[in-house]
Amino acid sequence: MDSGAEGLAQVLGLFRTRGSQTRADVIAATGMARSTVNQRLEALLSAGLLCSAGENASTGGRRAERFAFDADAGRLLVADIGASGLRTALCDLGGRVLAERTEEIPVTRGPEPVLKAVDEHFARLPLPRTGPGGGPALRGVAVSVPGPVEFEAGRAVSPPIMLGWDGFDIAGHVRRRYGVTALVDNDVNVMAFGEHRAGPPGVGHLFMLKVGTGVGSGIIADGRILRGAQGAAGDIGHLPARLEEPPSPGAEPALCRCGNVGCVEAYAGGWAFARDLFPGLADEETVNAVPEALRLLRSGDHHAIRLARRSGRILGEAVAGAVSLLNPAVVVVGGQFALTGEHVLTGIREVVYRRSLPLATRSLVIRPAALGKRSGVIGLAQQLADALFAPSGIAELLPRG
Amino acid sequence: MDSGAEGLAQVLGLFRTRGSQTRADVIAATGMARSTVNQRLEALLSAGLLCSAGENASTGGRRAERFAFDADAGRLLVADIGASGLRTALCDLGGRVLAERTEEIPVTRGPEPVLKAVDEHFARLPLPRTGPGGGPALRGVAVSVPGPVEFEAGRAVSPPIMLGWDGFDIAGHVRRRYGVTALVDNDVNVMAFGEHRAGPPGVGHLFMLKVGTGVGSGIIADGRILRGAQGAAGDIGHLPARLEEPPSPGAEPALCRCGNVGCVEAYAGGWAFARDLFPGLADEETVNAVPEALRLLRSGDHHAIRLARRSGRILGEAVAGAVSLLNPAVVVVGGQFALTGEHVLTGIREVVYRRSLPLATRSLVIRPAALGKRSGVIGLAQQLADALFAPSGIAELLPRG
Repeated sequence: MDSGAEGLAQVLGLFRTRGSQTRADVIAATGMARSTVNQRLEALLSAGLLCSAGENASTGGRRAERFAFDADAGRLLVADIGASGLRTALCDLGGRVLAERTEEIPVTRGPEPVLKAVDEHFARLPLPRTGPGGGPALRGVAVSVPGPVEFEAGRAVSPPIMLGWDGFDIAGHVRRRYGVTALVDNDVNVMAFGEHRAGPPGVGHLFMLKVGTGVGSGIIADGRILRGAQGAAGDIGHLPARLEEPPSPGAEPALCRCGNVGCVEAYAGGWAFARDLFPGLADEETVNAVPEALRLLRSGDHHAIRLARRSGRILGEAVAGAVSLLNPAVVVVGGQFALTGEHVLTGIREVVYRRSLPLATRSLVIRPAALGKRSGVIGLAQQLADALFAPSGIAELLPRG
Repeated sequence: MDSGAEGLAQVLGLFRTRGSQTRADVIAATGMARSTVNQRLEALLSAGLLCSAGENASTGGRRAERFAFDADAGRLLVADIGASGLRTALCDLGGRVLAERTEEIPVTRGPEPVLKAVDEHFARLPLPRTGPGGGPALRGVAVSVPGPVEFEAGRAVSPPIMLGWDGFDIAGHVRRRYGVTALVDNDVNVMAFGEHRAGPPGVGHLFMLKVGTGVGSGIIADGRILRGAQGAAGDIGHLPARLEEPPSPGAEPALCRCGNVGCVEAYAGGWAFARDLFPGLADEETVNAVPEALRLLRSGDHHAIRLARRSGRILGEAVAGAVSLLNPAVVVVGGQFALTGEHVLTGIREVVYRRSLPLATRSLVIRPAALGKRSGVIGLAQQLADALFAPSGIAELLPRG
């Protein structure tokens, strides 16, 4: 690795995390020599990644120029592909959403139809014209999918609910089409990352629970996404559920769509909620009945509320286990089922505070997703920006020579 | 942070992880300028951290000098304090054990008596005479304890089984007495780290289960110890146990020594094994009966084997949850109960391979601790060496000026 790129990434990182800085601020924060700092600021200014941000009086009375990261130096396109819907966004380099689109489309249609829908969205978002004088250039594209991802390769691996996606080279597809840096990750990982960055600084350990049609989780440890050896970390939805009362003798444990029985998701996911709310529904109808079930819940239906609260308690048992194992500072709860009222969240809180050890819950915060349905797209943009401005990425953004 | 120290740590790190290197190797690996590399090698040689390691023919036919990390440039003292015993060791800077001692002493005696025992051990280990010409100097001391540790402060926090240790400033005590860098961590974290370093390189995700008198776990994620927000991560022993058959109606769930009921440890820890093997034992006798219970197990007693295997299956349910959540490449099983025969390990394997998702177990290895009872002391020494040779530590090892 070029150590010049290391130094540039370090200096740019200061501006990205701390806002505008003077030359003296950069020298103090990095311990680099003044000449080195000057050289690096010059390179970042001429690449358009920094801009002037006015002056302030320096300690000696002389005016000191301030510089800032220029989030408008480029654009990012991101696509958050969920089990049943798609959300795309055009973002600046700071991860701010400038425009977005949504569409209902089941991921089970397969990679080609779904990625075609993504392309159509991207074409309709106010994409910058590239080239000299044509506005900020497209710098990267990021995509999340509802299944395990082999992160380095940008491929879906053995996704239980993504028919036809196994081994599909999503990153390669995107790179070929857009000719820019491509990043692919799991949907709950990027939600966790978005919520982590949106939260107060210094909170390195966050556990993200997504309760939508299915159930998944994402883990931030020491400020980084924990992906695990095969990219399969966070699979909380298919742990065996711990039920409040043992099932009556002879009762069969609930069948899960992963093919197993008794999973957390099979009792507490959105599709299980729909199944329990509308008894007699055929198995293949439960997923489609989720929107109607959520409508009933939103309307205040007592039976729906009782079931949602029960889902929350079953989720709470699994989250309590994750809290004991990971000792996060924050548990963030997102996903369309959990964000319909506070019922699921209330059930989760009820169990976690009762179950987990005092030390792990003493200052534990359990809160709904601060970014709501945008956790995913914002997390994608933040993560993509990090990749672009890492030492390995920054070299490509600078003029050659 | 001084970026000179960063560079020195980077160069020294190469020698620590890759073995002996030529100047050209360092230039190729770091991308640093030849003059910078020369300067850094000079500084590390004069600090005694590198030594000459002979010559080899360079590509041009000229002889190229090789350098190596000098593990004999200093000594480390480490103490692995368990629930019922103490293991201390004198190590070189590469984490090799040069001499060691063990003693049975319950941690519940409290910090002063236990740390006094540690001091006595250290005094009897062939401690280097410090000062000029007096042999390799003591560079650091590291201590592990069987409870949560506030890592930055080096303090035990709310340890459930360490009576009298809550808030005790272990690092301060050590630093005052020995006047060197001090490091304090949880016992299973350091075992995990030792096993991680002893394993094949490139395996970043490891889950360590310790089954001794009690049950605990340590998590390595992306090559680093996952400590969590309060240092309480890895608390698998006090998750509610998932039992093979529901307890008979009216039966009370097992009381745990943490004060709760139904914990994994209360069914599957060494003390619970002793309780079940010797019915009628008074509660306060179970811990003391562990050695006798392990002796019976070692002798091949059928009832003991059956109970140990059952402990393994109960542990397996909890480990399966951790595997789904963390997706480790390796699960390492250590601790005196688990290392007595293969019965506990067999029970764990039986359940984990059945329970966890195919993707997470496809290439999962479940193995006994490769370092046996020394995982802890070796992990402590490795971690201490990492701290000493990190940018923040390395500056202190170099001659001033």
